[in-house]
Parts: sequence; C-alpha cells; structure tokens
Amino acid sequence: MVEGKFSEIRGWAAFEPGIKVKPWSYRPRPLGDNDVEIKIEYSGICGSDLHTIKGEWGPPQLPAIVGHEIVGRVVAKGDGVAGLAEGDLVGVGAQVYACLKDSCETCSRGLDPHCPDMVFTYNDNYADGKQAQGGYSEAVRVDANYTFKIPAAIDPVHAPPLMCAGVTVFCPMLKHDIKQGDRVGIVGIGGLGHLAIQFASALGAHVTAFSHSPNKREECMALGATAFVDTSDEKQVEGARQSLTHLFVASNAPANQYNEFIKWMKIGGAIVMLAVPPGKMSFSASEFTGSEVSLSGSLVGGVKTLRKTLDFAAEHGIKPIIERFPMDQVNEALARVDSGRIRYRAVLENPRD
Amino acid sequence: MVEGKFSEIRGWAAFEPGIKVKPWSYRPRPLGDNDVEIKIEYSGICGSDLHTIKGEWGPPQLPAIVGHEIVGRVVAKGDGVAGLAEGDLVGVGAQVYACLKDSCETCSRGLDPHCPDMVFTYNDNYADGKQAQGGYSEAVRVDANYTFKIPAAIDPVHAPPLMCAGVTVFCPMLKHDIKQGDRVGIVGIGGLGHLAIQFASALGAHVTAFSHSPNKREECMALGATAFVDTSDEKQVEGARQSLTHLFVASNAPANQYNEFIKWMKIGGAIVMLAVPPGKMSFSASEFTGSEVSLSGSLVGGVKTLRKTLDFAAEHGIKPIIERFPMDQVNEALARVDSGRIRYRAVLENPRD
Repeated sequence: MVEGKFSEIRGWAAFEPGIKVKPWSYRPRPLGDNDVEIKIEYSGICGSDLHTIKGEWGPPQLPAIVGHEIVGRVVAKGDGVAGLAEGDLVGVGAQVYACLKDSCETCSRGLDPHCPDMVFTYNDNYADGKQAQGGYSEAVRVDANYTFKIPAAIDPVHAPPLMCAGVTVFCPMLKHDIKQGDRVGIVGIGGLGHLAIQFASALGAHVTAFSHSPNKREECMALGATAFVDTSDEKQVEGARQSLTHLFVASNAPANQYNEFIKWMKIGGAIVMLAVPPGKMSFSASEFTGSEVSLSGSLVGGVKTLRKTLDFAAEHGIKPIIERFPMDQVNEALARVDSGRIRYRAVLENPRD
Repeated sequence: MVEGKFSEIRGWAAFEPGIKVKPWSYRPRPLGDNDVEIKIEYSGICGSDLHTIKGEWGPPQLPAIVGHEIVGRVVAKGDGVAGLAEGDLVGVGAQVYACLKDSCETCSRGLDPHCPDMVFTYNDNYADGKQAQGGYSEAVRVDANYTFKIPAAIDPVHAPPLMCAGVTVFCPMLKHDIKQGDRVGIVGIGGLGHLAIQFASALGAHVTAFSHSPNKREECMALGATAFVDTSDEKQVEGARQSLTHLFVASNAPANQYNEFIKWMKIGGAIVMLAVPPGKMSFSASEFTGSEVSLSGSLVGGVKTLRKTLDFAAEHGIKPIIERFPMDQVNEALARVDSGRIRYRAVLENPRD
C-alpha cells in the first residue's frame, strides 16, 4: 500500500454550532488503491458550509472541517489510479464517493449524487465509518473518481467556486437544454446567480437578471445579462409577466414568492430551484394547469456534469467574482459570507511553501 | 355566402346551475368562409360539462349547450374550407378557434390552446360576441381548423372520448417523451385514467395503475397495465416508493396527496396533473431538491396533438370503455356521470334519420 505525504492533516474545524472554526488536525484514512492525496492550494466557502456548522441542517458531526470547493495538487496516489499524475492541478466538489456501477439504479442513469453509497465531502462517513473531512485544510484524501483535473485555461484561484456553485447552476441548464432563443431568468444575484448569468449567456440564451439590489445592474450586464429587473420596483416586475421560458431561482426567496414567479413564465415554462427556500410553498393546481409551468429542484451535478462544467467554463472564459482570504483568516471570511455582503464567493488560500 | 342546412339548431341546454338540461334551440352564427356545419351523431360527456353547468367554474352563460366531444358528418362548408368534404366523419374537441398565426407567440409554438384569441367549444364567445354552443345537440358550426377527420379504423361511437379525454392524457405523454423503459404510474382509473393506461402502454412504457378500487385491477391489466396498486392498502403503497419515472394524476386527488406522490417517484421523475385537485398543495422546497422531481400541469392539446391522438389511437386500437345513452336521455346520463359510477365515459347518440 502506498503511503501518503500527510500522516496528520492540519485544518480548521468547527467544534460547536456557530461560524467559528479553530486549528485542529486529524489522522487521514489510509490511502486506498483508488485514492489520491491532494495538497490543497485553494478552498472556496459555500453557503452549505455555514448551514452545516451552524447546525441549520441538523447537528453536525464534530469536530468538522467543512469546505467542498477544493483545488490543489496531487501529491500521492493509490496504485489503481490512472489518468492522474503527481503535480496535477485538481478539484474536488461536494461529493467524494459513489459506487458508479452499471448495476446501480441511480449511478447508471448519471445520477450518482443520489447513489445509496454516496459520501459527501464533509459531515458524512465512508463505508468504514471514518468521517469525511473537507477543504479548510492543508490536504485531503479522496476517491480518484471524484478528483477532477482543472483545465489549463482556468486560473486556479477561480476554480473552487466552479466545483460546487458552478456545477449547481450548470447541471439543470444542461438538463433543460438551455439554448439560443430561450428567455432565461435568474433570481438572486449572488454566489450562484452571478455564475448562472454567465453560463446561461454562454449557452446562447437571452438572460434577465432579477435582483432587489438595483446597484447590481451594471455588473449583471457585464456578466452577460441582456436585461435587468429591479424586483423592488413593481412596474419593472409587472413588465416581466409571461416573459421567461426558464427561471432559475438562485436565492433563498421566501416560499410565497413562487406564486409570483409562475406569473413571470411563458406558457410551458420551467421554474428550477437551485436553493432551498425556507417555509412551505402553497399552490392551487390551476396555477400549474393554466400555465403548464413546471416546478423542479436540482441538487448537485454528478461526475459527468462536473467535467462538463469545467470544460465549458474553460471554453467560454466563465470566471467567478471572488474575494480572497489567507487560510488563517478563515473566520473573517466566514463572517463576511454570513453577512451576505460577499461579492460573490470567498476563496481561502493556503500559504505557498 | 354558403347557407348551412340548419337555420335553427335544436339541443339540450342548461337554464340554471345544476345538472338538468332541457330542449332548446338557437339560431347558429352565419356559416363563415372557413366554417363547417356538422350534423352530430355522437356527443361524449366530459367532467368539464358538469363543472360548467353546475357553476363550479364560475357562473355559466345561460342557456348553455355543453359537450365538447363531438362526432358527426360534415353537411355544409364555407368556400374556404379545403381537405374536408360533405359526408366526412369528423370530430370536434374542447376548442373551436385559435388564430394559428405564425406571428402569435403561443400558436407559433404549437400552444394554440393558449392563444389569446382562443374560443372554447361552449360557455365562451366568438370575436363577434356570439356565444359558442356545444355538442348536446343535433348540429354545430365550427372553424374547419378545429374539425378533425376521424380515421376509418376508429369506430365512430368510440371517437368522442378521444376528442377531449384522449388528447388530454396523450398530450403530456408526448411532451414527456414516454417510451419503452419508462415506469409510468396512472392515479385514478376513470374516464381519463383508463385511456392513459392504454396510451402509455402503447408507447411501450411499464404501466402501474393506482386506484382505491381493487375491483378495477383486472380491467386495468386488460387495458395494458403491468402492475396494479390498491391505494387503500398501505403495504402496496409502500412497495411503490421510488418506482416511477412519470406519474399522471388523472383523479381529483386531494391536494395533500401530492406530497405522497413525490415519494413514489424515482430521482428526477415527473408528476403531471391532468385534473385540477381542489384545495391548496403545500410543499417544502426540499421535497423537490432532494428528489429532483418536477411537477407540472397540462391543459388540453392543440391542433397538432389532437391529430396525433386520433392517428395513434387508430394505429394502436385504443378504445374508450363507454356507456351509451340516446340523446333524449341526456339527463339520466348526466346523473350517472355525476354519481361517479360511470365506466368510464358516457356517449350520447342522436337518432338516425
């Protein structure tokens, strides 16, 4: 068995519910035959990280090192790993394992995020019971199937947000076959939304950005939006009626706004939830039958979609707008993300050797 | 201008909210250049007829002759009508007019039931203000674009239910591209459901019929179902979890059952409402994001879909199960449909000459 470079991995862990993390180290699981060890250079902060350590999605397993937008270099690999070499720049997203077998009902349909054996990058456990730890850290060991080469055209510091936020917005756009002629709306111009504008625009769609912050208009247009609707202006919202073929909801819009969203759709349009709004949505059936609108949610993309996301971003020059923080300022970074003022994704950087 | 054969059309009209109709006659609108006059042989009874005359969908225009599953012979036609000849057996469904122009946002997308100028077959008005009257009648004058030749392979008495119920179930199946390998569920085995089983089965899908009437099992299997779930048996319902790629809800299932329906779906499955359940549906966003299930409604099919429905039914021998009533027993027929005991569609027959 191959030994990794890190017998002990130092990172920043949550020890109690909240948004404070502290230095901590853990002994990594043995480097398996299909595993790679990655020395982390950059780690993005995702809203899920905060939900998890605050305990908003249930009590987390503590101590927990979160972070699932990981970018670094391969420093060791198991004997079974093909297609990756030491020194390769790679990324890891929200998932680190699925069986990927043809006999698996979900994996065989390209739905590996729903594999019964799937393991999340953090706050989850491998089959042997060992806890998975994430990217606010100097290194990580993960399955090679969930380790993705970063295309050379992507600046490494821009890669982390593509690993979760990027694939989250691009996956349902592929599923809904977004293309020229489509009228796409993006609600919520933040970490997800500012990437969604770029992906939809690169796919050829007419893109309308919806935001209650009119000061985001120029930035949205620069990112590729064709139109901007200030949702605090009733008249502008009224003008958006029946204008969209697709609406991607990238904000935690209150559940009762979905009835309004239906009115923005053309007949047969599709509303896709990228975030999970709090509260209960309530609909009359006639809101759907009259409009023929569909409502669906999207979780994260699987192996194939992640690869497509990176390739498409490289080809079309899609770049997240980020704020950079040294890894040892992770608590400042978390506070800034928590405040909602971040524009638009935070990326932690480990010190260079 | 061509004169029609009927200067006065005798039919059965509702005069007050309820399910009683009485003999009445009206003077038809002038036979337009693109109109045909049809001597009605058969007229199906649709649930919509009852909702309308009971006033459940708002106060109807009275007197109202309802009925939008009309089959008869062309007896006169305007000079502009091509492709139809006197004596042709034709059908008319729930819609009698749309502009069908390329410049129309909805018609150009094949969504003519949503055309701003659309006219329903009854309880609606033409552009000139004249009220449209339906099929419980000896004749009707309608636009030739909404007059469909009935294929020779279809027994005329079986054609009426295809004009509304048939296209209602087939339209969303085409939209969702139902095919071999799909696991389709049909909830509610009645007028719509018993046709939905046949269409889905003819499209090659594995079909599971869901009903709280276990005595419908054999009939469902004979219609093409591969499996039957008695929804009054918790164990059977439990066994249906995550088994379906598509669910067509053909019953007025209470709104709160939709949360249960989501559990029957495989990841990424689609739930389609064919009927309009009373009450409000209430969902947590996570019910959609976790399952990636989509929810949508379907109204009726347009010109192209109606033609496909008739052709497909002819090719695959799809036949509604009907109870026949002479036209002058229309009140008995309405009472039987209203009781919910009809198996599964009622067809009124005009006397032969």
